[in-house]
Amino acid sequence: MTEPRVLVLVSAGPTAGPTVPPALQRLDGRARVTFGDEKSLVEALPDADVLLVWDFSSDALRSAWPGGGPRPGWVHTASAGVDRLLFPALVESDTVVTNARGIFDQPIAEYVAGMVIAMAKDFHATADLQRRREWRHRETRKVAGSRAVVVGSGPIGRRIGVTLTALGVEVDLVGRRGTDGDPDFGRVHASESLPALLAEADWVVCAAPLTAATTGLFDADTFGHMKRGAHFVNVGRGAHVVEDDLVAALRSGRLGGAALDVFASEPLTADSPLWQVPGLLVSPHMSGDTVGWRDDLAEQFADNFDRWLAGEPLVNVVDKRLGYVPRA
Amino acid sequence: MTEPRVLVLVSAGPTAGPTVPPALQRLDGRARVTFGDEKSLVEALPDADVLLVWDFSSDALRSAWPGGGPRPGWVHTASAGVDRLLFPALVESDTVVTNARGIFDQPIAEYVAGMVIAMAKDFHATADLQRRREWRHRETRKVAGSRAVVVGSGPIGRRIGVTLTALGVEVDLVGRRGTDGDPDFGRVHASESLPALLAEADWVVCAAPLTAATTGLFDADTFGHMKRGAHFVNVGRGAHVVEDDLVAALRSGRLGGAALDVFASEPLTADSPLWQVPGLLVSPHMSGDTVGWRDDLAEQFADNFDRWLAGEPLVNVVDKRLGYVPRA
Repeated sequence: MTEPRVLVLVSAGPTAGPTVPPALQRLDGRARVTFGDEKSLVEALPDADVLLVWDFSSDALRSAWPGGGPRPGWVHTASAGVDRLLFPALVESDTVVTNARGIFDQPIAEYVAGMVIAMAKDFHATADLQRRREWRHRETRKVAGSRAVVVGSGPIGRRIGVTLTALGVEVDLVGRRGTDGDPDFGRVHASESLPALLAEADWVVCAAPLTAATTGLFDADTFGHMKRGAHFVNVGRGAHVVEDDLVAALRSGRLGGAALDVFASEPLTADSPLWQVPGLLVSPHMSGDTVGWRDDLAEQFADNFDRWLAGEPLVNVVDKRLGYVPRA
Repeated sequence: MTEPRVLVLVSAGPTAGPTVPPALQRLDGRARVTFGDEKSLVEALPDADVLLVWDFSSDALRSAWPGGGPRPGWVHTASAGVDRLLFPALVESDTVVTNARGIFDQPIAEYVAGMVIAMAKDFHATADLQRRREWRHRETRKVAGSRAVVVGSGPIGRRIGVTLTALGVEVDLVGRRGTDGDPDFGRVHASESLPALLAEADWVVCAAPLTAATTGLFDADTFGHMKRGAHFVNVGRGAHVVEDDLVAALRSGRLGGAALDVFASEPLTADSPLWQVPGLLVSPHMSGDTVGWRDDLAEQFADNFDRWLAGEPLVNVVDKRLGYVPRA
């Protein structure tokens, strides 16, 4: 039997090598692993049995996908979001798509909890005052007893909800479809309930998958339903937010503040106006990336590769029509 | 019966009036309430039955206390720490001292949790990069699975411990005396165990009362026991820390960072070197002060005043020898 061919899509340039962690050596002797960047993808793809999308920020697969020709039967992405993979030719093919579900839940939940506390306690203004050597006592806000709406009932949204609940926040979790029998929250609200829930929330967090239904969800209309002075956090995808509308909502005082870890266009260039919007905290798409994350991602893929080789069912299989891994 | 006389010690200056909240009106018709600042204290004190130390940052009581002469039988301080009241003449008198135990627990616990996450996730560096319009992805740290030592087993230290535990941190609580039968933590470590515990901790939090035993506790020796790169948070009193030793530990890299809400001398003046120590986060003694805190403090005093007037036992009575309210 010939060894299966695993193609690893890495970013171009000199940093490509070191970012691929040693855990992939688990495939040695059982697969022929090759590395390719965006440029070599068109040529390499038809020969690959498995594609590991290691550089998950790449959009190259869409144009390089071989359509009806020879193509990988399995594509794994080292990310939770699969929006970049769900172009029609891949959705309609029989290629299986899996993702990195689980790796990012806890780090992102901690990041959101930290941002909520930082905004409640005015940490960033305190840092500005420190730089000016100015002692200015202020009254800030208690987090316990406040209310949050978390949009996205997948594992990341759920972990955010659980973590905020542990801090005494009353959390409403919003999913595509509602249920009254949720094991963690009892009730999950359907997306139709969102406007009413927004009116009561001190914190609104986006942790949804990017699908047709959630693209541009956070626009002027949605911000208009929020309580005056409420805060917004986005750890989903940049395209969930109409950025101009967010800026307007911050400038008008409708929103008391916002923290964005993701953007319509990444990386933000130095001339982006978003760097300097009052009340807007910008972080460079790093909320889920804690020390060891690349090793965890590689181990997760290698585990799934073991299953694939043994003919067992893969885990974290994406429902390509829904755009995420459905809850078991 | 003549109305008892309640003296309220407020800060001097034009802001004194508005800082005393309406809840004190609950005493109207049942007490003669007068307000005095540091200057009028010597004269007013002998006439007072009750002293409410509203300006808890004042050190004036020590010199104004009438010794063996007529004096209040009850002193209440609108603070958790009572270190400023425990001068020998008051300790040795039969005057009862009560404090604001309970009001600050949750806000301070949230502040500490926020600082822990902010330091783990490098929030402050992210803000600096934002100011420079620089997109720089970094790997940060997971909070869950890390270890914390919380020094101080009173209600504030406990709530900090409970909150960090809810975030997945393994917490060791350290009190004056250890016990294996603690209702919240099972085990509370005795202070003798501190050096060994410090060696394992990623986060060390001071939430102790300021007593002879804890003054200067965090010095070069203590920092020397900490794990290289660990972080320190002080929400106790400034005098718990030998500030020069802390600065040296930060500069040498022994400590990875620190957050101080309290200082040996408050407010920090503009020329204090502490404003600009790399890795040191300075906040102006505000971690416990959330919107409504002054109302809560006034209500708490008025509740105790009701008890006092009815001849019932006061709550939050300080053991003046120990320097805090002992656990019931």
